[in-house]
Amino acid sequence: MAFQRVDGAFIERLRNVIGNGDVLVAREDLEHYGHDETEDLVHPPEVVVRATSTAEVAAVVKLCAEHQIPITPIGGRTGLSGGALCVHGGVGLSLDRMNAIERIDEQNLQVVVQPGVITQVLQEAVAAKGLYYPPDPSSRGSCTIGGNLAENAGGPRAVKYGVTRDFVLNMEVVLPDGEIVWTGANTLKNATGYDLTRLVVGSEGTLGIITKAVLRLVPLPKETRLMLVPFASALKACEAVSATFRAGIIPSTLEFMERDAIVWTMRHTDGLPAQLSAEPGAYLLIEVDGDHGDLLMRDCETILGVMEAHECGEVLFAETTPEKDALWRMRRSVPVSVKAHSVYKEEDTVVPRFELPRLLHGVKEIGARHGFTSVCYGHAGDGNLHVNIIKGDLSDAYWEHELPKAIREIFELTVSLGGTISGEHGIGLVQRPYMDIAFNARQLALMRAVKQAFDPQGIMNPDKVLPQA
Amino acid sequence: MAFQRVDGAFIERLRNVIGNGDVLVAREDLEHYGHDETEDLVHPPEVVVRATSTAEVAAVVKLCAEHQIPITPIGGRTGLSGGALCVHGGVGLSLDRMNAIERIDEQNLQVVVQPGVITQVLQEAVAAKGLYYPPDPSSRGSCTIGGNLAENAGGPRAVKYGVTRDFVLNMEVVLPDGEIVWTGANTLKNATGYDLTRLVVGSEGTLGIITKAVLRLVPLPKETRLMLVPFASALKACEAVSATFRAGIIPSTLEFMERDAIVWTMRHTDGLPAQLSAEPGAYLLIEVDGDHGDLLMRDCETILGVMEAHECGEVLFAETTPEKDALWRMRRSVPVSVKAHSVYKEEDTVVPRFELPRLLHGVKEIGARHGFTSVCYGHAGDGNLHVNIIKGDLSDAYWEHELPKAIREIFELTVSLGGTISGEHGIGLVQRPYMDIAFNARQLALMRAVKQAFDPQGIMNPDKVLPQA
Repeated sequence: MAFQRVDGAFIERLRNVIGNGDVLVAREDLEHYGHDETEDLVHPPEVVVRATSTAEVAAVVKLCAEHQIPITPIGGRTGLSGGALCVHGGVGLSLDRMNAIERIDEQNLQVVVQPGVITQVLQEAVAAKGLYYPPDPSSRGSCTIGGNLAENAGGPRAVKYGVTRDFVLNMEVVLPDGEIVWTGANTLKNATGYDLTRLVVGSEGTLGIITKAVLRLVPLPKETRLMLVPFASALKACEAVSATFRAGIIPSTLEFMERDAIVWTMRHTDGLPAQLSAEPGAYLLIEVDGDHGDLLMRDCETILGVMEAHECGEVLFAETTPEKDALWRMRRSVPVSVKAHSVYKEEDTVVPRFELPRLLHGVKEIGARHGFTSVCYGHAGDGNLHVNIIKGDLSDAYWEHELPKAIREIFELTVSLGGTISGEHGIGLVQRPYMDIAFNARQLALMRAVKQAFDPQGIMNPDKVLPQA
Repeated sequence: MAFQRVDGAFIERLRNVIGNGDVLVAREDLEHYGHDETEDLVHPPEVVVRATSTAEVAAVVKLCAEHQIPITPIGGRTGLSGGALCVHGGVGLSLDRMNAIERIDEQNLQVVVQPGVITQVLQEAVAAKGLYYPPDPSSRGSCTIGGNLAENAGGPRAVKYGVTRDFVLNMEVVLPDGEIVWTGANTLKNATGYDLTRLVVGSEGTLGIITKAVLRLVPLPKETRLMLVPFASALKACEAVSATFRAGIIPSTLEFMERDAIVWTMRHTDGLPAQLSAEPGAYLLIEVDGDHGDLLMRDCETILGVMEAHECGEVLFAETTPEKDALWRMRRSVPVSVKAHSVYKEEDTVVPRFELPRLLHGVKEIGARHGFTSVCYGHAGDGNLHVNIIKGDLSDAYWEHELPKAIREIFELTVSLGGTISGEHGIGLVQRPYMDIAFNARQLALMRAVKQAFDPQGIMNPDKVLPQA
């Protein structure tokens, strides 16, 4: 693709359609919008536009289409696969100013939001009305709904409630030529034509820019119970995960943390329960939710029975809200704690949940063979294991040339177990080189044809998701 | 599109790849496979092939592609939009012999099935292992999983559990050139490339032929409670639906039936409870499910409070399994009872659930103005209202020329309420003329481009879903 460069005349044209203060060209602004949470990568745009309306987004996209300038939508910049990085420069279109919750529809249990709404802000706004928006990425305090939709974000509650895709009913999207379409209808069921909604969800900003979404809500559960269960071996912990579902329980959270995740997190987290020790080999963090405390206690007893049958250690029940908060803070701070300790790469492997022990075992074996250590944790109920590979003292040369071979082995193992290479972080920039492991040439050709159908010029977030043909 | 006709030489070639007894050309066979449950339409294929393996399906599709002969996948022929009708003749590819449940994976709560498995057979097979496949179209005793996937079938339990789309993890698909691909991975979460799985689900056999599916299961709930709630007015019944969710209850079924649906069903159904009367204007059939009887009783009490606040009549609780079965049989036999009474057309409208009273009121008003009567019932919890328009004494000329104008008005109303023209039956053949109401030219162009990406020759189930350009 031969893209054009942004020049002064183009910036003038942008300023004619966007408020002057919302076209940014200062170097620090470009750097700021040029990185997300993916490793230490920085790919600044040539110009940042902060749109305030769908009409502005459409006008900017039209200009880009006319001038053959690449455009990359930018949300909360919390992504872990580099989806929002402007690898070809061009326009970085930030949606952060389009952050209105337009309507909470209590009759239909729906909410209409702009893409720049922060996930936690949405959750709290609907909770104030007794409603619940469950998708809950760890970065919920700073990630945005638009980014969640673009990446099909998950989080710990997906095991019971589903991922972002399962909560979107309809979206307004600016297509790569600047036209505005809605993808579906505001209904729970829809068997009318091809499912454009779920085609755009998870397409990582490569098919269009999401400018509005109608999301489904559910009643807010009134109570939760939370427990932390230690195991001598990670294997036993993983086995207990499958057994929990077989016992008829669908927890609202079923998280796995291996010992090192706990060790590092304890170093960096205040206020953890005194009983917490980093002796055991692994932990499960298990939450159940519902409206009736007595029922939840019965669920906890069932779970306890399953855990004991898998040789767990002493279970730590969070009795109070501060105790619950501390355990959740610990779980949520694992990535930050790992990051504080070393440069690292995070892989987002996912397998059928019973295969998790085999995946974990394989990851450690590959690490031993290739000479790296890893800290593993994740959403065990979904079979979604985040593998954090620690740079530590490894050389830059190793990191750049040797490690990708090891990652390839991890992904090959993942796929051989019926899994795939991203559960919830997306492919973005950094996993593109591995897409051939998950898909053969024909599958990729189908995806390329879909991209071509939406974006024949290829200006919309170029060089993401699909590997070079 | 210039399709070729099936001739003797082509049939010879089919017989070379398919067992001789599974290539059918007798007139009665062609007629048999040439209709589904859509009105009284018959569109026979020129030849029927009953494939027994994915390899055979692929070989047949390759032959069709080579000879430019249209091919239409045929499942249980219970469709209500004509998706399986062979409108251009060609090959009718029946999947009825590919009916193996290949593997029930109790560890991962997944099942691998061939497309010809009858939905109820699958449900019973997994229930025997304490597992649950909730999607539950009324035709579950004869419809097949392949057809359910192609049409994204719903049913009464979708309100709690979701539709077919929400239970499919991965599919094997024969593409329109005969190549075989899998659409995804066997995982609960997947953020790896475009979602081909959900693009093919609900595409009504126009993008490829589903030859295998990996479906998600959940634990089988141990108990249910079922009640039938009469209301003097349909409006009050519909209002009670939204209020139920606002009270924090997600029933496993929340069905609406207007008086005429009951009147006609009572005529044709044996064994109904003696207390049942057709005096009230409308009924809600409400089921809750779970593992704890005492909790379900509390849910029922909450529901009862909501119903009473909406001026319901005396609630009929189904105490025993035979009573439950009778109420379900009554609900499931509404379509059959209507059909036994008159030629009819069934429209599958869906709106946000709180809009249901307005939709119902509008349908009746349009009927009064255009001179037709309708019997309405459906999945009120999903806002999915089936509108059965009764031919009765109306002339054939009216039915052919006037009624489509009235249907157009019904669909325009539906879309104006935030809804769409099919909730679970699909567009198939008979709703194609109305697609312009649900989608504008650009949305349809996107769908056509997707079709083109999968099926450039246009041989796969031609003239379905998308209207002529």
